[in-house]
Amino acid sequence: MKQISSILTDFYQLTMLQGYVEHSIDDIAVFEFFIRKLPEKRNFFMAAGLAQVIEYLETLAFTQNDLDYLADDGRFHPDFLRYLADFRFTGDVHAMAEGTIFLPDEPIIRITAPISQAQLIETRIINILQFQTMIASKAARITLSAPGKLLIDFGLRRAHGAEAGLFAARASYLAGFSGTSTVLAGKMYGIPLFGTIAHSFILAHDSETLAFEHFAESQPDNVVLLIDTYDTEKGANKVVNLAPRLAEKGITIKGIRLDSGDMTLHSKKVRRILDQGGLPDVRILASGNLDEYKLAEFSQADAPIDGFGVGTKMTTSADAPYLDCAYKLVEYAGIARRKLSEGKATWPGRKQVFRSFDPQGRMCGDIVTLESDKLIGTSLVKHVMKKGKRIARQPGIKKSRKYALSQLAGLPDYLIQLNKSEKYPVEISRHLTELAQKVDLRNNAIP
Amino acid sequence: MKQISSILTDFYQLTMLQGYVEHSIDDIAVFEFFIRKLPEKRNFFMAAGLAQVIEYLETLAFTQNDLDYLADDGRFHPDFLRYLADFRFTGDVHAMAEGTIFLPDEPIIRITAPISQAQLIETRIINILQFQTMIASKAARITLSAPGKLLIDFGLRRAHGAEAGLFAARASYLAGFSGTSTVLAGKMYGIPLFGTIAHSFILAHDSETLAFEHFAESQPDNVVLLIDTYDTEKGANKVVNLAPRLAEKGITIKGIRLDSGDMTLHSKKVRRILDQGGLPDVRILASGNLDEYKLAEFSQADAPIDGFGVGTKMTTSADAPYLDCAYKLVEYAGIARRKLSEGKATWPGRKQVFRSFDPQGRMCGDIVTLESDKLIGTSLVKHVMKKGKRIARQPGIKKSRKYALSQLAGLPDYLIQLNKSEKYPVEISRHLTELAQKVDLRNNAIP
Repeated sequence: MKQISSILTDFYQLTMLQGYVEHSIDDIAVFEFFIRKLPEKRNFFMAAGLAQVIEYLETLAFTQNDLDYLADDGRFHPDFLRYLADFRFTGDVHAMAEGTIFLPDEPIIRITAPISQAQLIETRIINILQFQTMIASKAARITLSAPGKLLIDFGLRRAHGAEAGLFAARASYLAGFSGTSTVLAGKMYGIPLFGTIAHSFILAHDSETLAFEHFAESQPDNVVLLIDTYDTEKGANKVVNLAPRLAEKGITIKGIRLDSGDMTLHSKKVRRILDQGGLPDVRILASGNLDEYKLAEFSQADAPIDGFGVGTKMTTSADAPYLDCAYKLVEYAGIARRKLSEGKATWPGRKQVFRSFDPQGRMCGDIVTLESDKLIGTSLVKHVMKKGKRIARQPGIKKSRKYALSQLAGLPDYLIQLNKSEKYPVEISRHLTELAQKVDLRNNAIP
Repeated sequence: MKQISSILTDFYQLTMLQGYVEHSIDDIAVFEFFIRKLPEKRNFFMAAGLAQVIEYLETLAFTQNDLDYLADDGRFHPDFLRYLADFRFTGDVHAMAEGTIFLPDEPIIRITAPISQAQLIETRIINILQFQTMIASKAARITLSAPGKLLIDFGLRRAHGAEAGLFAARASYLAGFSGTSTVLAGKMYGIPLFGTIAHSFILAHDSETLAFEHFAESQPDNVVLLIDTYDTEKGANKVVNLAPRLAEKGITIKGIRLDSGDMTLHSKKVRRILDQGGLPDVRILASGNLDEYKLAEFSQADAPIDGFGVGTKMTTSADAPYLDCAYKLVEYAGIARRKLSEGKATWPGRKQVFRSFDPQGRMCGDIVTLESDKLIGTSLVKHVMKKGKRIARQPGIKKSRKYALSQLAGLPDYLIQLNKSEKYPVEISRHLTELAQKVDLRNNAIP
């Protein structure tokens, strides 16, 4: 998975590239990735995926096998294929750190490179950044809706293929989850792994209690029992009855899991059964069709649930499964650019975002302006790759997660709510609007 | 991408597996994958992903590197890790062919294997089947809404990671698309590749006409020009003016692409400009935010658009980004099983689906029954793997696509409409309901 094929791109990137190469069009292009608008009910985004973008750019190369495939296609010239054989990314990257909160029209990555390079990488860069950012933004809402609770990513099975499961594990961990059930994500990204048992394990035994016992003996330090296969409260009573026998073997039951029915009701009944059975330390976990709204409901209803396995709706960002994002040319050969296509215009030029904070450290307003401007506030877009190499050791996922949590702590109250809030102020600077007018005048004269 | 890691699975699959191994629980288990209900507005599903499931099962093995990671985790015993080192899938698989239309409660795959094996593979099997089936089902609606039109998958950039883009290219091709823009999907699956140019190519030139010319010279057999960067109708006029000059060089303009604005209006204006300019054979392609509803609108409005690039909404199945699917234990050690968990009960036992057709060859009713029953009708679930090996050469994607198109041609009219139709009749057989009652009686007596 690490070195993804360089031909994981759109066909038109290659046909355009051939056009550039043949006509020796290779001035420096500047592209920026940004999101045009917030999905319904969402109030902010959280940037994620930069580490995978850097890895991709550092290792990008065409294998002989890929080149043979392109040669067989018949639409590419031998000269161009020889050019591709030596293709490397040698450009610069500026970006917001992973975990940064951002808003529409704010670029989270800027690529500065010969246009042949900056263009080819478009598809994969969007593919990485939109998905991880979408999941981090969704997972951040879930984190905010369940303060103090254990949150685990359970989403792999309903993720859109393998990489979606891996990226979602990573992005949700970044946004405050405690870990994932996806083993390979644990290995690839160093994320803590969690997991218990499934209904089939219970069903493969002729006794539910025996199934609990077998599992506990096999995983003595990790005993979380699924109790809803037949009847949730009966299951809880079986746990109470089993506990002393396991205790004799030195095994402590850590938790139980609910996966169906009215979980507020069940959790209250089960909590009572466990407490009365002398098991006040056994934690209650819940899973099944959860999202930030369900978690907020549980919190309002004082459901005694200690942790949640959150899967499908987080992993697919079910209420907003794509973002209106773009990777757009903002400068070419030293001249700022933007297209005029109806309803889709973008801000031209290399941009920077400055953010202001209130005395409590909460974000209170952003200005999007030209990179060359020096405004008051914290600049969010930093230099991360120079001439194709990362500038410094990038932060590991645990450090990025800490930063992301500090970002969530710095959200103003009105952005935290689950429904659409008043808009966070993002100002487009006068310099930027003036530049846009200049570009449009120039565009109208284009032959 | 081919040999996906065996630890692309949920952590609990491994902890359960250790429980099974330690307690020598390894009778034959039968699991089936099915979908519980249709998403809102959907009337049928199309099965997809079987080829990738077979490939996964044939190559499943733990690498030393994976085993080292699991050893480091500390929750697995050395004996169990030695067991994993020799792990192979040796079971049987029965399945509906890719491209088959199916309904809720109908199993599209059945795994029969020692429970250790049948359990471990659950996560990846759902991960492959739900996504490809979801996309094929969505793409089939798009195919049905645009008869005779060229349909191309443009979705990679907003797909949920790399594999989602690849799988979506494959599943949409299966369901009747003509090809994809994803180069790697072309290579991996033998799917035709399509692609033109992007706005940035135009913007990197100081003249739109010059950009058109450069592209045409570089791709003389593939000239489709994007004309909406500045002004769509002006762009069309530039195409008309350029055509004679290109003709002198032996280059024919094949098409133009619209990517913004009111496309019905633009396509009519552009068609007139092209026709009056002597270019009646230049085809009009459209892209940007398309789905089956938009395509049906264009058709109703007689928009003269010949082909569509369909991306985001198809690739993410945006209106239904996950399916309520399950992979459930239906038999263990020769005894039919199901869980009783509230609201989530499943049909027990090994099942078969029989389908009846009317004299015109259109499907008119299904019966879900026990595998051992022999009913009138066509049985849909076939034996595809035996003892871990594929039984016969499985059909290639082109053959599956042909079958899928014949399945779409066999849909009754009421299932074709885009909104929710009357329900297609799926009967649960008496044998099956009787078995379910027997299983429930037994479940209620489980200690």
